[in-house]
Amino acid sequence: MLNFDFYNPTQILFGEGQIASLAKHVPANARVLLVYGGGSIKQNGVYDEVIAALAGHHVTEFSGVEPNPSYETLMRAIEQVKAEKIDFLLAVGGGSVIDGTKFIAAGALLDEDPWTILEKHGANVSKAMPFGAILTLPATGSEMNSASVVTRKSTQEKFAFMNRNVYPKFAILDPSKTYSLPVRQVGNGVVDAFAHVMEQYMTYPVNAKVQDRFAEGLLLTLIEEGPQALANPDDYDVRANVMWCATLALNGLIGSGVPQDWATHMVGHELTALYHLDHAQTLAVIMPSMLRVRKEGKRAKLLQFAERVWGLTGGDQDTRIEAAITRMEEFFEKMGVKTRLGDYGLAAKDIDAVLAVLEKHRMVKLGEHRDVTLAVTRKVLELSL
Amino acid sequence: MLNFDFYNPTQILFGEGQIASLAKHVPANARVLLVYGGGSIKQNGVYDEVIAALAGHHVTEFSGVEPNPSYETLMRAIEQVKAEKIDFLLAVGGGSVIDGTKFIAAGALLDEDPWTILEKHGANVSKAMPFGAILTLPATGSEMNSASVVTRKSTQEKFAFMNRNVYPKFAILDPSKTYSLPVRQVGNGVVDAFAHVMEQYMTYPVNAKVQDRFAEGLLLTLIEEGPQALANPDDYDVRANVMWCATLALNGLIGSGVPQDWATHMVGHELTALYHLDHAQTLAVIMPSMLRVRKEGKRAKLLQFAERVWGLTGGDQDTRIEAAITRMEEFFEKMGVKTRLGDYGLAAKDIDAVLAVLEKHRMVKLGEHRDVTLAVTRKVLELSL
Repeated sequence: MLNFDFYNPTQILFGEGQIASLAKHVPANARVLLVYGGGSIKQNGVYDEVIAALAGHHVTEFSGVEPNPSYETLMRAIEQVKAEKIDFLLAVGGGSVIDGTKFIAAGALLDEDPWTILEKHGANVSKAMPFGAILTLPATGSEMNSASVVTRKSTQEKFAFMNRNVYPKFAILDPSKTYSLPVRQVGNGVVDAFAHVMEQYMTYPVNAKVQDRFAEGLLLTLIEEGPQALANPDDYDVRANVMWCATLALNGLIGSGVPQDWATHMVGHELTALYHLDHAQTLAVIMPSMLRVRKEGKRAKLLQFAERVWGLTGGDQDTRIEAAITRMEEFFEKMGVKTRLGDYGLAAKDIDAVLAVLEKHRMVKLGEHRDVTLAVTRKVLELSL
Repeated sequence: MLNFDFYNPTQILFGEGQIASLAKHVPANARVLLVYGGGSIKQNGVYDEVIAALAGHHVTEFSGVEPNPSYETLMRAIEQVKAEKIDFLLAVGGGSVIDGTKFIAAGALLDEDPWTILEKHGANVSKAMPFGAILTLPATGSEMNSASVVTRKSTQEKFAFMNRNVYPKFAILDPSKTYSLPVRQVGNGVVDAFAHVMEQYMTYPVNAKVQDRFAEGLLLTLIEEGPQALANPDDYDVRANVMWCATLALNGLIGSGVPQDWATHMVGHELTALYHLDHAQTLAVIMPSMLRVRKEGKRAKLLQFAERVWGLTGGDQDTRIEAAITRMEEFFEKMGVKTRLGDYGLAAKDIDAVLAVLEKHRMVKLGEHRDVTLAVTRKVLELSL
């Protein structure tokens, strides 16, 4: 096991009806900015419940945070925070809204251009505004971690930052609020959570037995419950299991003490920034090819994955590995997320542009061994066509 | 899944060499009281490393915290805290030292007799001194939770309290510091952690799939690594896996959203208070009988335990259940912890005294269904002879 430093102070309030407890967790005299995206929280009743729960609080709003939240939009929110002397943020939505709120929380207190937070991956964040989150879309895990991904539209750049000052103070997770999610968001969310686990699990063995068991437990649960969430959208326990999986997939626990990969995510971010694929779509396209191309370096864990997650014990090693990757692809497709670049209208001619931005962003030595060079990534993209 | 409220702000610094980072986590101008037990930390080098790491800090000491820390001893520590105007505590040791430090941290700031903290199970704790922990014995999970168990020698009472103000600010877990532990403490620690998982897992199904998988992952790892820790005391990864298991067994995570039992612990506490058995010895004695006597209420989870933890799928249900309980007993014995009351010199004539104190302490409706009456406990004790 590798040495690690684990810290996660976010309070999780999980279950049906928890939004009603909101006032206990937001300081009574705070000037609150409600941050949200489009209109879905007005359609599914969450907005009304939040407003009712905050009766008596000073609350104003900032709406319009888009999927893949943009620097341009978030800077307008920072202006509003300053103009209205806001001192508490409340993110209501999915990962994009929560990621955006983290950027607002850190950027509003920064002395330099907040874009530097992304350029420096959070190293220049020494303080942030307090904020809470009400999660409506289980996927990214942002509700219980200190990471955020922000896109700059003007330059087509999508960067991440991490900083311990941007853990949500609390996160409310009510699975019943996810019943009304569109099929596409349910599928994306499950694939995203699955990929998060894989980035921390599918590397090489360091004899971290608990982390492996936990990661496998999350994968097994997502495989069981993901399709159920599509088939029986109003099943509370299914939604609860998916929601809790997505949070635990990226709250730092399963990644503590083990190597991590994240090459799939880095390539995926560029596909989203350039061609506007959904984040989960990029993961479903890239991850299978990434595992096939890098099979030798991941052989031991791929065999463990085949056996413990997919129950594959017959045939030679390469057969089991290929079968496991195929089963994963089939699972992504079953969740409604296509797994080929061609499914999204991309072709061989688009690969050079992806490699060019990866090079520009110095993403030229990715993965747990830093051996995913541009040449390796080219092979991965070619295999994903 | 049941609703839950999960919060755990303890920072975990895990791995060989982490004690050297201590000064970064203790406030520079703090008046620190080092709290420890007997001389083991002086023999294994931990004491010297701690003192070296805190060079430049104001440090005084309180030693002599005993296994099953006593109110009487801890009250002397509280006197020292007040006399020396201590404002930061550093627990160095196992669960007893950390539990005791939590009591000191809360008791030193309380306006009434600190024994009321135990009588009120922590309800009267509104603040506590900050403290950190350096763990030398993986077992109780106290290093990453808000619970504490304290014994009053004069009245032979052993009570628990919980309060969110007594989470350690940080805990340092260096597996290499456990190489020199006596066999008895290694065995006790593994059994204790195993029993902690069982108290939160072995109830009835609520379709909390992640919690079940995580619990099973901890049990499987303890079963694999526990005997290895005895056979190869200096194997770093084995010690690391055992240590991380013990912490995660009782940090609140696997118990969130599921029913919990704890009847075995409540009966066990009385056995320790009356007859001075080690805590883990009481668990090894009581838990198998508790599961046999309450088999019907736990049937579904016992079958799941049999299959997923012990790989038992053949034979009828009752055969599989009995085999699983027997395997668990054999595991406890393999860890060097005896599983019968007779092994500790107790006999049928001692049962009435145990039931009398359970009644006195109102422990008459225990377990996840509150149906473990004194009559049920009598059966359990008789079956444990």
